[in-house]
This record gives sequence, structure tokens and C-alpha cells, in this order.
Amino acid sequence: MQEVHLDTKKRSELVDITQRIRTLIPKEMDTGICIVYVPHTTAGITINEGADPNVQDDIIEQLNLIVPWDQSFFRHSEGNSAAHIKASLMGSSVSILIKNGELQLGTWQKVFFAEFDGPRRRKFWFTFIPEL
Amino acid sequence: MQEVHLDTKKRSELVDITQRIRTLIPKEMDTGICIVYVPHTTAGITINEGADPNVQDDIIEQLNLIVPWDQSFFRHSEGNSAAHIKASLMGSSVSILIKNGELQLGTWQKVFFAEFDGPRRRKFWFTFIPEL
Amino acid sequence: MQEVHLDTKKRSELVDITQRIRTLIPKEMDTGICIVYVPHTTAGITINEGADPNVQDDIIEQLNLIVPWDQSFFRHSEGNSAAHIKASLMGSSVSILIKNGELQLGTWQKVFFAEFDGPRRRKFWFTFIPEL
Repeated sequence: MQEVHLDTKKRSELVDITQRIRTLIPKEMDTGICIVYVPHTTAGITINEGADPNVQDDIIEQLNLIVPWDQSFFRHSEGNSAAHIKASLMGSSVSILIKNGELQLGTWQKVFFAEFDGPRRRKFWFTFIPEL
Repeated sequence: MQEVHLDTKKRSELVDITQRIRTLIPKEMDTGICIVYVPHTTAGITINEGADPNVQDDIIEQLNLIVPWDQSFFRHSEGNSAAHIKASLMGSSVSILIKNGELQLGTWQKVFFAEFDGPRRRKFWFTFIPEL
Repeated sequence: MQEVHLDTKKRSELVDITQRIRTLIPKEMDTGICIVYVPHTTAGITINEGADPNVQDDIIEQLNLIVPWDQSFFRHSEGNSAAHIKASLMGSSVSILIKNGELQLGTWQKVFFAEFDGPRRRKFWFTFIPEL
């Protein structure tokens, strides 16, 4: 289990963490899976297109429409319920396959830390599990 | 693989199952991951804040707004399509890291069984996978 | 790690891939988990009810309402931002338990490849990880 820190820059943004994950695959890891886990409740993690940054902006903007920041019925006193809800919609972890020591992603896929209540100092954890 | 039963009390609610998961980590488990799986199609599972119960209520209420119980185009004859959709939005399993025999969660994180068509007798399954 | 191809027929549909997964469980696999991974960014994967096909239609139609295909603020030039967003809402992988060489699903659960920008030739990957 390893821990990596990152600093987010906006209230809501997708931060590409693919390269950071790649550099941490242990040499003895041949084939199996990697679990990347976000230990926060107002941020999540997702895999999506990394080629055109407009995709990331469109995802963030549509999520803001689905879960508005201000909602008359929100009761959580910190005022960031929208961030909690978006974190659950994205999920707290991703599983990625590893083959011959290399992360297996689709042609257009990148792994994104999904910030919904930034900017903040954040972290993620990961671990590697060998295949049968 | 172990099975745990629980009784939900409302149509929609998040039930904290963190402590039940903790007590079932086998003594021989040192470091790895735990998979918690929900075998239902109108309930899911999510990780979010456990300190302020208002967060759980805000999540449920916003999901009810995103997926209304009655929708003119729903054709499923049981009338609980909204619950099926919310189950897919939350997901059917979570992966959690285990280190030195202890569940690794963020400071504010709890694991919630997400009921969307209760009250019902429900169950979840889990298993432990060792790290490399 | 194995790769399976499939051809989707509509822009948006849930394709039941449960049986294809079942036939690929290796004989030497006794107890553990199976990870099914979708390497696309405009398709995802979800577990939901397979008995009544209306459930699948209701899920697709409600997702189309939550994320409309045309949205004035979308900037991604390919014009399929809605598909990217729905892929992230469903997720890119599922984890399923295996016991005595058999996939463990709830009574009504099936595994669905979630197409959001078809029809296309698609694929999914999977791998098996043994239990402690």
C-alpha cells in the first residue's frame, strides 16, 4: 500500500494521475490488478478520455447541473453536500489490470482524481494484487 | 466469502455497515483488499461521510430528485425502476484496502449499504484478497 | 487477462455479458474474485436486473434524461460528451465473487456492458484473482 499526495487547483476538476500510478508499479509485479483508492468524501476517482481536455470540462459541468452546489433542502452544515453526492456518483476506487508489469488502459483512457470541493491538498492510496 | 444479513427500515436510506465489516476481517489477513458486494438489484453500496447524518439524508434526497420514483415512461411492472437506476449509479461493490489486519478508510469515511426499495431483509457478501 | 469482443446494435443499450463471463472462468479457479474491465470511454459496465428487459430500457431512458445528448455547453468536438459522462456514472469495471469455480450473483443480477455511443465493435477484459 502506497500513498501519493496531490494539490488540486479548483473547486471541481479532473486531475490526470495516470503517470503517477505508472511510475509506482513495483518491479516484481508481473500480472494482476491495481486498486487506486481515494480516502476522501468530497472527491472521487474515474477513468475517462484524456486526449481532449474539453471532455473533462464537459463532465464537470454536467455533474454541476445534475447536482447543483446550492439546493434548498441540503442540511449538512459545511455546505458542501453537492461534493459528497458527486463523490458517490463517481465512486471511491478503480480497478485496473496489469500485464507484464504494465498498466492496461484503453487507447483513450486516463485515470482521473475527481475533485469536487477544492482547491485542497489531497491524497490517494494504491496497492497491487497478483493474478491467479 | 462470507454473508451478512441486515434489515433496512425505510424505502431509501444509507445504512452504516463499517463496524460489521471490521469484525469479520480474518486474523490471518495482514495486507490486501476487501471486496464488499451487494447481490441485490434495487440496492447498492457506497463510501461517504459518516460523521454528520445530514450528509446521508442529503445524498438520498438529491438522488430522489435525479431519479424520481414515478416517471411516465417507466415500463417495469414492479414499479421500482427508480431503485434499479439508483443501484447502478452507486454500484454493486466497493474495494477497501487492509493493512496490518485493519480496514483502511479516510478520516470521515464509512461504508454504507444503499437501500432504494426498502424496507426489506437484505444481505451483503465479502471476501479478502492478499496483496503481492 | 482475457479479451472478449462484442458488437452493439444501438446508440445506447445494456448488453447482457453474464454467460460469456461464466464460460471463461478457468478450471483451476476455485474461490476469489473476477474483475471485468471496459477499456472504452463512451461505454461502461453495470450489474442490474436481467429478468425483465423493461428494467434495462428504463435505466437507459432515465440516463438519457439525466444527461441529454445535446447540451448547449458541451465543447468536445466529437459531439459525444453525453456518452463519456454516462460511462463515468456507470463505472469502468465490476468485481464479482467466485466460489467453487462459479460466478456468485444475486438471484436477479446479470452483468451488462453499457453502450452509450454505439453501434460499435467493442471489447471487455477480465482477470481472476484468488482469495486468501
